[in-house]
Amino acid sequence: MSGSSYGNIFKLTSFGESHGLAVGGVIEGVPPGIELDLDAIQKELDRRKPGQSAIVTQRKESDRVVFQSGIFEGKTTGTPIGFYIENENQKSNDYAHLQDTFRPSHADFTYEKKYGIRDYRGGGRSSARETVARVVAGAIAKQVLAKIGVRFSTYVDQVGYVRFENTDFFDLNEIESNVVRCPDQAKAVEMEALIREIRKAGDTIGGAVRCVVEGVSVGLGEPVFDKLHAELGKAMLSINAVKGFELGSGFDSVVKKGSELNDIFNEDGTTKSNHSGGIQGGISNGMPITFRVAFKPVATIMQTQESINREGEKVEVQGKGRHDPCVVPRAVPIVEAMAAMVILDFYLRNKSINL
Amino acid sequence: MSGSSYGNIFKLTSFGESHGLAVGGVIEGVPPGIELDLDAIQKELDRRKPGQSAIVTQRKESDRVVFQSGIFEGKTTGTPIGFYIENENQKSNDYAHLQDTFRPSHADFTYEKKYGIRDYRGGGRSSARETVARVVAGAIAKQVLAKIGVRFSTYVDQVGYVRFENTDFFDLNEIESNVVRCPDQAKAVEMEALIREIRKAGDTIGGAVRCVVEGVSVGLGEPVFDKLHAELGKAMLSINAVKGFELGSGFDSVVKKGSELNDIFNEDGTTKSNHSGGIQGGISNGMPITFRVAFKPVATIMQTQESINREGEKVEVQGKGRHDPCVVPRAVPIVEAMAAMVILDFYLRNKSINL
Amino acid sequence: MSGSSYGNIFKLTSFGESHGLAVGGVIEGVPPGIELDLDAIQKELDRRKPGQSAIVTQRKESDRVVFQSGIFEGKTTGTPIGFYIENENQKSNDYAHLQDTFRPSHADFTYEKKYGIRDYRGGGRSSARETVARVVAGAIAKQVLAKIGVRFSTYVDQVGYVRFENTDFFDLNEIESNVVRCPDQAKAVEMEALIREIRKAGDTIGGAVRCVVEGVSVGLGEPVFDKLHAELGKAMLSINAVKGFELGSGFDSVVKKGSELNDIFNEDGTTKSNHSGGIQGGISNGMPITFRVAFKPVATIMQTQESINREGEKVEVQGKGRHDPCVVPRAVPIVEAMAAMVILDFYLRNKSINL
Amino acid sequence: MSGSSYGNIFKLTSFGESHGLAVGGVIEGVPPGIELDLDAIQKELDRRKPGQSAIVTQRKESDRVVFQSGIFEGKTTGTPIGFYIENENQKSNDYAHLQDTFRPSHADFTYEKKYGIRDYRGGGRSSARETVARVVAGAIAKQVLAKIGVRFSTYVDQVGYVRFENTDFFDLNEIESNVVRCPDQAKAVEMEALIREIRKAGDTIGGAVRCVVEGVSVGLGEPVFDKLHAELGKAMLSINAVKGFELGSGFDSVVKKGSELNDIFNEDGTTKSNHSGGIQGGISNGMPITFRVAFKPVATIMQTQESINREGEKVEVQGKGRHDPCVVPRAVPIVEAMAAMVILDFYLRNKSINL
Repeated sequence: MSGSSYGNIFKLTSFGESHGLAVGGVIEGVPPGIELDLDAIQKELDRRKPGQSAIVTQRKESDRVVFQSGIFEGKTTGTPIGFYIENENQKSNDYAHLQDTFRPSHADFTYEKKYGIRDYRGGGRSSARETVARVVAGAIAKQVLAKIGVRFSTYVDQVGYVRFENTDFFDLNEIESNVVRCPDQAKAVEMEALIREIRKAGDTIGGAVRCVVEGVSVGLGEPVFDKLHAELGKAMLSINAVKGFELGSGFDSVVKKGSELNDIFNEDGTTKSNHSGGIQGGISNGMPITFRVAFKPVATIMQTQESINREGEKVEVQGKGRHDPCVVPRAVPIVEAMAAMVILDFYLRNKSINL
Repeated sequence: MSGSSYGNIFKLTSFGESHGLAVGGVIEGVPPGIELDLDAIQKELDRRKPGQSAIVTQRKESDRVVFQSGIFEGKTTGTPIGFYIENENQKSNDYAHLQDTFRPSHADFTYEKKYGIRDYRGGGRSSARETVARVVAGAIAKQVLAKIGVRFSTYVDQVGYVRFENTDFFDLNEIESNVVRCPDQAKAVEMEALIREIRKAGDTIGGAVRCVVEGVSVGLGEPVFDKLHAELGKAMLSINAVKGFELGSGFDSVVKKGSELNDIFNEDGTTKSNHSGGIQGGISNGMPITFRVAFKPVATIMQTQESINREGEKVEVQGKGRHDPCVVPRAVPIVEAMAAMVILDFYLRNKSINL
Repeated sequence: MSGSSYGNIFKLTSFGESHGLAVGGVIEGVPPGIELDLDAIQKELDRRKPGQSAIVTQRKESDRVVFQSGIFEGKTTGTPIGFYIENENQKSNDYAHLQDTFRPSHADFTYEKKYGIRDYRGGGRSSARETVARVVAGAIAKQVLAKIGVRFSTYVDQVGYVRFENTDFFDLNEIESNVVRCPDQAKAVEMEALIREIRKAGDTIGGAVRCVVEGVSVGLGEPVFDKLHAELGKAMLSINAVKGFELGSGFDSVVKKGSELNDIFNEDGTTKSNHSGGIQGGISNGMPITFRVAFKPVATIMQTQESINREGEKVEVQGKGRHDPCVVPRAVPIVEAMAAMVILDFYLRNKSINL
Repeated sequence: MSGSSYGNIFKLTSFGESHGLAVGGVIEGVPPGIELDLDAIQKELDRRKPGQSAIVTQRKESDRVVFQSGIFEGKTTGTPIGFYIENENQKSNDYAHLQDTFRPSHADFTYEKKYGIRDYRGGGRSSARETVARVVAGAIAKQVLAKIGVRFSTYVDQVGYVRFENTDFFDLNEIESNVVRCPDQAKAVEMEALIREIRKAGDTIGGAVRCVVEGVSVGLGEPVFDKLHAELGKAMLSINAVKGFELGSGFDSVVKKGSELNDIFNEDGTTKSNHSGGIQGGISNGMPITFRVAFKPVATIMQTQESINREGEKVEVQGKGRHDPCVVPRAVPIVEAMAAMVILDFYLRNKSINL
């Protein structure tokens, strides 16, 4: 009920505050007998990790995951996988000044009003550090899905006004060939330059992430409320700083005619175009699933901003600590993790349609 | 599990196919002792009803709701409210030719592949007729929320390229003053003209709906996965033909800087701007909640399209029956209903934080 | 959340008060393509029906079920099945005197305190009339399970001190050969005589029901909290007037030694004894599942009892209307229905263990 | 879905195998701002701990709980509490001989068939070691409930044929005054003697536990499926070795008349007797809640038993390691923990009835 669980059968229940002992979780519904590649899981965590490049926050966290259950002699047993990642590099003093202050466009004010108490160090439960648990669950989901041919391609397609307009599937090495995680090298250079410039100004900038999923069979998604893209939308909107989600032709559909947008079938059931983004009537149609996620600029900026404290008095705040000037390069593995969790969950849900 | 329920405490479980006996549902979690205005519920159904104006489908349905339980001497008792709306105007023959045909960008193909069987008459379960149940549940939710000062303003803000860019709260009579349900009269005239032109061409056109909710207190939304806007996004994306959702500054955030987008607090905890759309960290902050929903053009067009049948043979399909050239005027009460269901559910969830 | 739903995948959401328009529900998760025998469903309702014999309540209800969705051309489509049964024989006047009175050991007092309002006619939502919806869902579950060889044998094994101690599987015609639904004819005669005697005294008497399920494959049940017998226990305890549940050796286990009670394996994996009642570690082991359910005497008696009214003043109450002197003959189909719902739900849940 | 979560709002999700790294869990829905007494939690774990007395298993586990989140400056924050208890004293070699063997009346056979793989060391996930996580969650629930006057009294009321027939509330020191945890000193002596005798014979014996809860206000329990005692029953039946559950008059009700069993009201709404066990119509009525739980003898005995291996060949098994001759003394804190979890969950659920 309190919203720390995601999924129906493949389900992550996460816990942890940014400056507590650890962030972790319990993963239920992992099929038994799957040989897990623990290095591959760690690599996903490294893609999300602070300090990985010059354009992200310079906090240092080793982000080593400890698995406490559910794996026996290298294989999953079908029982819940308990795990945690220690919080190592907690410069809690960076936050002492925020004990009584509400930062603009952060969750300080709303948590305080809702719960009457909050772990004010680094955002506590509202910190994006929580997403480290999602990356673990998503990495496991991807390994399971790989066995049935489901592949993910997730990349940055926009930073500020620099846009790489594309819905193609790119290989991981193309995406990882630059620190921005945009598979177009020229655009990546522009994006990186923009991020560096923004950081120099003590400011932050928004961006967008594209995800393309290939190999999803026909039939995933549960009508009428649990449409596949409705759940993908919720999953994405649950990620910190996300402000929008669109499937296939998305917001562009608003200006289009039916005669332009309908996806005409080929004789094999595939479609000549894919404005539907791989989903029709809430159910996957076998075409690549493709959606796009809008991220706002990080709220913590290195400029002085006016704000208020608990007593409602005016104060000034200025970002301390080490923050991202643009969140999307590190958001790529998080978007992919949530997508994998959703897709696997719907695969498993779909198994129980028939006896 | 099969996705026909929405909500946690205030919960609608819907049933029904477009050409079966009835569409209906069970509403759980309605607070007891609420005097219900049944006429007001019927009025909401009338706003969604086919045949209400010249620019929507001319099907005739009286859409009278029958309540079977949960109301005693005019008041809710806290027990589940069972209800149904008969399907009256079923021209099933309009669909006989579709028994073996998959219409482009409809759910015919995906339902058939998923279940191996489908009620092919008029879309069956995938028909937007199902939303009549949502409107009933939403109308009840609105009556409950009205008692604590929550008010909704939902209107068409775009049809094709005609856009009314605005996030204000408009009164119902302003919205209902024209058949398009756009509170700007000049824009409404343009939109209506466009819809008529599109219909004449046997085509359809996309559109967008804006929803503004006032009077929501601080603290609704459950971190971390059940953020208020994540659930609003899922609710909207579960509506037929929806392709995108954005909260507050939405996709515009992508090109913005933190210094531009942060909402600076006033001393009373309100904010000077509302780029956050009334939600910070997934929790309502007391400012108006505002989001926008993108609808694609209706897939059924009155032009001949190439398609396939069950055997994978090429066939031609052409829309018969009576369809909407643009879905957004009738989508307004549906968007509002889903928003009300979500907001009330989170109010009730929020009650159980403390003993 | 409000407790009117049962099951995870095969799920019944019920609605209805005893003296409202109807009792009904929505059944989700029915596998598609199943040809339903509607007469067989009606027969189950007839086994539960008032007025079916001289030893049960003489209320008259035809209890005809109306299906509103989810069935197309005689087959299930996999979409939710909406249904209702009208309340016909509402002698609401029998209850007018109870508007302000709390009957002893009824739910009048607790409903009033919980909700502040109640439909006082005949128990309202707390009436056992609600179980009519369970019988419909259970009858459908039984038809689905029959296709994979699961069979149910449910019978009265005790009325007052008259006990038929047995865990065998009896055929339906043996059970239905007498009005008590005890497959032992001699015991049935004794039981019937006892019930007639009790009724003559204006009193009521307790009883017990045994259920044996054959043909359940190995592997149903989800550790650790959703053990198969834990869910069966909840299902049974949710039936009106049930006070106890025991699996296999049940309460007898308390006085037994491990060396007596352990079920020794045969080489084929079956066991020589079945003290486990077909479930080990919460998971079915392929042996017959057998459990027993204790019912208290009906609270409404035809004798004058002291009680209180809303104002806390002493009043006298005496049963009016038409009530059962012993509930177990009519409880047999309800126990079986709930058992079938649980078993089918676990079959479907078990499908989603693997991809 | 996979059954490792319990509760709706106050919810425990547990993980861990008996011989893996740790057993732990995530507790959601803990109200914020509660000062937690960590020593009291540890004391509950000590009551469940192996090696605590001469009549229980002599395994040594320190069972120290580590809390990783959800507590800040000594108080709960309302965010999930992640925790774990290391498995220290793993004599895995005691189980090496069981890799291919199915022990009678254990879950070895059913887990192997269900999942195709199992951690065979000490029962793995099916081990009662998992209940250590329940005791942590229950101890927290008890602290929260204590603030509103809810008190628990749980004790052994039967070992073999030695029965202490009573439904009174006893203080913790009376219960803890002997190693059996039976508040009647004479009966406790008899019970202890019986357990010692049974152990000497290499055998095990069943028993029963009584739980009495005082201070529960009127109105807990959700009709119709989530009756308070239905959920209590499920909670108890989910504990290892439990075979039966009865509320109030329980199985005795079967032989009783309505005129004997009805609980007559006093003018203040309390009742003169409490055959209902504090619950009417599934809702607490303000009287003490009292129920009884039947435990079978532990399946592992120190005698040679015939069994089979994976290949279906006959083998002999004999208990090695250190096991309990009677489980009920250590089951007392587990029963109480589950009861507290259920009661608190229903308190929180009941908050959301009204706006």
